[in-house]
Amino acid sequence: MTFTNDEIEYLNSQDLGRLATAQPNGTLQASPVGFTCNIALGTIDITGYNMAASQKFKNLATNPTVAFVVDDIVSREPWRVRCLEIRGTAEQVGTGSERGNEGPLIRIHPTRIISFGLAAGDLDVEPHQIKPHKRTLQ
Amino acid sequence: MTFTNDEIEYLNSQDLGRLATAQPNGTLQASPVGFTCNIALGTIDITGYNMAASQKFKNLATNPTVAFVVDDIVSREPWRVRCLEIRGTAEQVGTGSERGNEGPLIRIHPTRIISFGLAAGDLDVEPHQIKPHKRTLQ
Repeated sequence: MTFTNDEIEYLNSQDLGRLATAQPNGTLQASPVGFTCNIALGTIDITGYNMAASQKFKNLATNPTVAFVVDDIVSREPWRVRCLEIRGTAEQVGTGSERGNEGPLIRIHPTRIISFGLAAGDLDVEPHQIKPHKRTLQ
Repeated sequence: MTFTNDEIEYLNSQDLGRLATAQPNGTLQASPVGFTCNIALGTIDITGYNMAASQKFKNLATNPTVAFVVDDIVSREPWRVRCLEIRGTAEQVGTGSERGNEGPLIRIHPTRIISFGLAAGDLDVEPHQIKPHKRTLQ
């Protein structure tokens, strides 16, 4: 399993994530995106209006490296945030002649997952006392 | 003025942004961060616990290219989102012997600003009917 149960539960509870991609000239982009956690494949699937025409989608053709983060503010007093960052590579699914029922979409294959504040007890202490959970996949 | 009044008002209304940076080996990172809109300098200033030790801060030494995005969901029914993306370069402020009252912090100098949903009337129509506002600085 790519994702833990805690991670799946968290991903399913949030509506937006933010996707970092790199343009061919090295310019970085950060884009708010809707997403689904594809449990069967162990991927994050990102869809959106006119996806195949978007720059973030095109960026993957020259540089498939991406980072994706989901976060939320659980409480402001005291300050408590949660986040789940996924780094890896992404593929363009369902373009051109291969277009099927799925696409077009961006499919992220995680290579590293870092979470913060998702474990039981994490939100009971000051944020800087939380130890991030980090793991490398593949 | 780097930022318009609408952009300043929006930035000041939001607590978290997400910062995209690139590690020396090309791996991308996406990090939720607290920030302030520095109107006098026309920059976005990012502070945080143990900032100088963070990977996102260190990344700027080898690659100052960044993207930063703030977004929020105004309404789910109908679906209405706003976002403001800032692309540019970032500097490490207040490190080492230069450490002053300000730092350490990450200071983003915008070169391109793209907003969506911030203009009057934008939220009265379907998201795909909104024309993004894009401009290049410097």
